[in-house]
Amino acid sequence: MKNGAKVDVINLGDELLLGLRDNGHLSYLGEQLSRHGLRIRRNLVIQDDPNEIREHMQSAWSDADLVITTGGLGPTSDDLTREVISEVLGLKLEFVESIRDSLQEWFDRIGRPLTANNLKQCYVPEGAEVLPNPLGTAPGIFLKKDEKILVMLPGPGHELHRMFEERVLPRLEEEDLSASEEQYLQLRSFGIGESALENKLFAVLNKHPEMSVGYCAHQGLVDVRLSLVNGNGSLAGLRETGEQCMEILGEDFVCFGHDSLAEIALSYLRAHDQTLAVAESCTGGLLSNAFTDIPGASQTFTGSVVCYSEEAKIEHLAIPEIILQQHGIVSAETAVAMATGVAEKYSSDYGLSATGFAGPTGGTEENPIGTIFFGLHTPSGAWSHRVTLPGNRFMVKARGVNTAIDWLRRKLTKYQMHDAFSNLEYFLGAGI
Amino acid sequence: MKNGAKVDVINLGDELLLGLRDNGHLSYLGEQLSRHGLRIRRNLVIQDDPNEIREHMQSAWSDADLVITTGGLGPTSDDLTREVISEVLGLKLEFVESIRDSLQEWFDRIGRPLTANNLKQCYVPEGAEVLPNPLGTAPGIFLKKDEKILVMLPGPGHELHRMFEERVLPRLEEEDLSASEEQYLQLRSFGIGESALENKLFAVLNKHPEMSVGYCAHQGLVDVRLSLVNGNGSLAGLRETGEQCMEILGEDFVCFGHDSLAEIALSYLRAHDQTLAVAESCTGGLLSNAFTDIPGASQTFTGSVVCYSEEAKIEHLAIPEIILQQHGIVSAETAVAMATGVAEKYSSDYGLSATGFAGPTGGTEENPIGTIFFGLHTPSGAWSHRVTLPGNRFMVKARGVNTAIDWLRRKLTKYQMHDAFSNLEYFLGAGI
Repeated sequence: MKNGAKVDVINLGDELLLGLRDNGHLSYLGEQLSRHGLRIRRNLVIQDDPNEIREHMQSAWSDADLVITTGGLGPTSDDLTREVISEVLGLKLEFVESIRDSLQEWFDRIGRPLTANNLKQCYVPEGAEVLPNPLGTAPGIFLKKDEKILVMLPGPGHELHRMFEERVLPRLEEEDLSASEEQYLQLRSFGIGESALENKLFAVLNKHPEMSVGYCAHQGLVDVRLSLVNGNGSLAGLRETGEQCMEILGEDFVCFGHDSLAEIALSYLRAHDQTLAVAESCTGGLLSNAFTDIPGASQTFTGSVVCYSEEAKIEHLAIPEIILQQHGIVSAETAVAMATGVAEKYSSDYGLSATGFAGPTGGTEENPIGTIFFGLHTPSGAWSHRVTLPGNRFMVKARGVNTAIDWLRRKLTKYQMHDAFSNLEYFLGAGI
Repeated sequence: MKNGAKVDVINLGDELLLGLRDNGHLSYLGEQLSRHGLRIRRNLVIQDDPNEIREHMQSAWSDADLVITTGGLGPTSDDLTREVISEVLGLKLEFVESIRDSLQEWFDRIGRPLTANNLKQCYVPEGAEVLPNPLGTAPGIFLKKDEKILVMLPGPGHELHRMFEERVLPRLEEEDLSASEEQYLQLRSFGIGESALENKLFAVLNKHPEMSVGYCAHQGLVDVRLSLVNGNGSLAGLRETGEQCMEILGEDFVCFGHDSLAEIALSYLRAHDQTLAVAESCTGGLLSNAFTDIPGASQTFTGSVVCYSEEAKIEHLAIPEIILQQHGIVSAETAVAMATGVAEKYSSDYGLSATGFAGPTGGTEENPIGTIFFGLHTPSGAWSHRVTLPGNRFMVKARGVNTAIDWLRRKLTKYQMHDAFSNLEYFLGAGI
């Protein structure tokens, strides 16, 4: 693999500059490239305007090894991207029959006529490889010239993703520009802040200048991404360093990779043939949703009750009225009664509950806005857990969900440790 | 207001280029600026590296009227942004006592010592205005030089947002660069695709070259944003054009602004003193969550049941077993029974339900993956509605939720029309 390839990404799109949507192409390409040993040097978002494209394409092409563009390949008359870029590269546009055939097929399938507008999409710079687009009409372009590579991708996300993974990554690897094996390792943690985590891992990561380290905090989770860039270091070294970090993190280590907390918790439960039900008030359905986002969840997740009123708690979860009267809706006692109630109602082994104040109104002096009590019912007992979370209603809900599932994960991991310790072979194997 | 101001936004941050997070600063600033009559010409994301900053700051400053930077103002030794930018502008850095005082106060409050590192944050280019940062340690900078303006903002989102709205927008207005009144209008629609919508509105919007038009489709919603840029056009014209578009859209028009479908539906129900309960399977909690995202939802939204198993449907929603046997879990009959069951269970006026196949497994020839039946129970009858939605599990869930609530919205609007027509004053007022 070549060292130190300079990669520039140019996004064309007025809607990005108007703030109509996040630039998901940048985060997608940034992640994909760093997973394969490349790193974006610069990202430029410009209007879909010939002068802008000409100026910035010239500048990128004069200095970068790989230029990736997104957008501007559609059939509308404003899309002059192809023309301007061919001009900058000093190439003619040529008509490609095979593109016309694919377009004809596409339009036949959807039962609409192929218009003259669409035929514009059949022109590509001479010598370019055409990247078929099974999900849309605009084909992509892969072009080698002057020891440089140009990749042009369509704007819609699902078209771009498929084309990049199926067509572009293999070609970049053939050109010895990227690595086939993933050159990165992600550790996911929960329960420790970003800067505290950085301090904890400093002693280990400081020894590895060949690795680029990125941190990303989201709703209580902090991901640490270790990447080998530009062909330095080895995958074995990456793995070893990752394992050292895992040791340091202890219970706060969630997983390697991108699994959600709910995936981790459900896989523990599934492995032990146990089921889970949920009762929630302040999280309002979001806790259930975290579990039902996982394909096949129905084997393990039996269902949930979202109680938004006191009556609902009494009637649907059979919570004794005396508990609500004595301790209030937002209390450890109610949380435990909700967890036990829903586990019984759905005949589940485990019950997980959340009751609290998400804001902007509600809260007491003792339990201000952001306070949530979680309840956990298990075959061997029931517990509660209280937190006060910062932020607005959405942040409290989202972080509350993660905190609940992380708590469940920790409890389950402890059980599993206990199971392991009660296994004689484990003791013998460990030499105890 | 000056016409045609050129605005460049430069984001410093390796984490953006590594794809660790979306560039939320671009979408935030893009929206804020277009709401106040300005438009971003270019956005550049670069590494926090002195050479990169020097090169691109020089280029932006030579050509733009307003340059906004984000990030690179922290206390760590890598943050050389201040130094490099002062150098490019040909200005010295000067130590500002008032920043030191605020920092001292901040560190006293959190009970930690002020370190030498932090004192770096007290240096600003000579002549710059300091923008206080009530939520963090890095102050912002507002600088006028050579008829141009430089704004430097801190990286963390909540610090940036508050500083931009409280300090930067008023200053831009004073400098006659932006407008005080919002120069934009957003129409939200559902049920019509982006390009069909564009065609429908073409005749009206084509008459207004002074307005910039942006479309954004998300999970079945399509937003149309009309903006006056660079001081052209009038707010009255904007309103009038918006109303013409509304007429054309008819039932597909959801609202002006940013309200969610759930907000619209709940506000109808609240106005009529009606309550709503939800029963969902394939949407797994996300439908409930859309309603509970709204502050004060508990007055109207009584609660929900997420049934992930057949037993749960029979037991908790009292659905006759014969219906499930005869029609199956994913059917119009079951959807209606779920809606009626949950409305009765929660003593609610309305019940809304969803049952379907979100994928990746499940589905039948008749009802493939992506098929959802919705049920609606109302005081005057019960209905069902069937859709087949494209995409993966997450897309089907998210779009299914929007489709369900939009269907409820349409039904409610019809009722309200009916109420209105039965109101004599309405007839008199309309001259019928």
